[in-house]
Amino acid sequence: MIEETEQDLEAVVTALLGILGRRGWHLGTAESLTGGMVGAAITAVPGASAVYVGGAISYTDHEKTALLGVPADLLQRRGAVSAEVAESMAKGCRELLRVEVAIATTGVAGPALDGRATPVGTVFVACAMPAECRVERLKLAGDRREIRIAATHAALELALRLVRET
Amino acid sequence: MIEETEQDLEAVVTALLGILGRRGWHLGTAESLTGGMVGAAITAVPGASAVYVGGAISYTDHEKTALLGVPADLLQRRGAVSAEVAESMAKGCRELLRVEVAIATTGVAGPALDGRATPVGTVFVACAMPAECRVERLKLAGDRREIRIAATHAALELALRLVRET
Repeated sequence: MIEETEQDLEAVVTALLGILGRRGWHLGTAESLTGGMVGAAITAVPGASAVYVGGAISYTDHEKTALLGVPADLLQRRGAVSAEVAESMAKGCRELLRVEVAIATTGVAGPALDGRATPVGTVFVACAMPAECRVERLKLAGDRREIRIAATHAALELALRLVRET
Repeated sequence: MIEETEQDLEAVVTALLGILGRRGWHLGTAESLTGGMVGAAITAVPGASAVYVGGAISYTDHEKTALLGVPADLLQRRGAVSAEVAESMAKGCRELLRVEVAIATTGVAGPALDGRATPVGTVFVACAMPAECRVERLKLAGDRREIRIAATHAALELALRLVRET
């Protein structure tokens, strides 16, 4: 399953990097529950550095504000696992890294709940582009590992769909 | 091999998080060639957020300076794949995230060489602590994937050794 997953991811990333590369656009990441898995999947592909500049792993609320500029009151009001925070992370990442496209993830991978008793498997992925930011809410099944892998896929697939549309 | 690798990594991370947690210390990461793999390995362990706050994926030279404060002239003089830059990334990460312990990775995973024809498999891992920063130079064999996995292991093992000693 892992090998298959990696091949699938590689195909999505290769397509995404190809389109962005032809446009001369750059890509960054802002990760919470995936903790670096999206960046790792992107950089698994040789030549990624022509498009991917890097990212922030903002695992705690404090880092979401300090690194990505997510407003502290938004985190308090909506919680870190929310569409609004996912959008703010993606937009903040675009500004931090000065890239055209930024991918963000936030969610509850379990086994513990977050402070708000948000159900395990609740995940938001976001992709911010120059003229649009799209957020998707996911309800993922499985254990911590499966949820994080599925969130990584979903985030990269959202980015690929969005850049293909625009 | 992947499953074994993941179990090994989990044991190292669990031990590292345990020691740091008992001290009330926090951990951050600054990754180049591993592109998020160290963060992903740490956050694979449930409860990591008590110790791990996040990190920077500084895949390009520009992000090493912009995110981690690595001096641009150091990058130019020594190259991104150098002991000095690994140390500067780890120290910069400690400051950026205000954590006691920071882990950094930089190297050439291949298949392409960097601009200085540094041999593929040349990797530097660093761990910065309050009173010490240690850097290790590695010559890793294998393909891009194997080199990145080995670098992730080496970085986490260095951190575990260093916190156990001090």
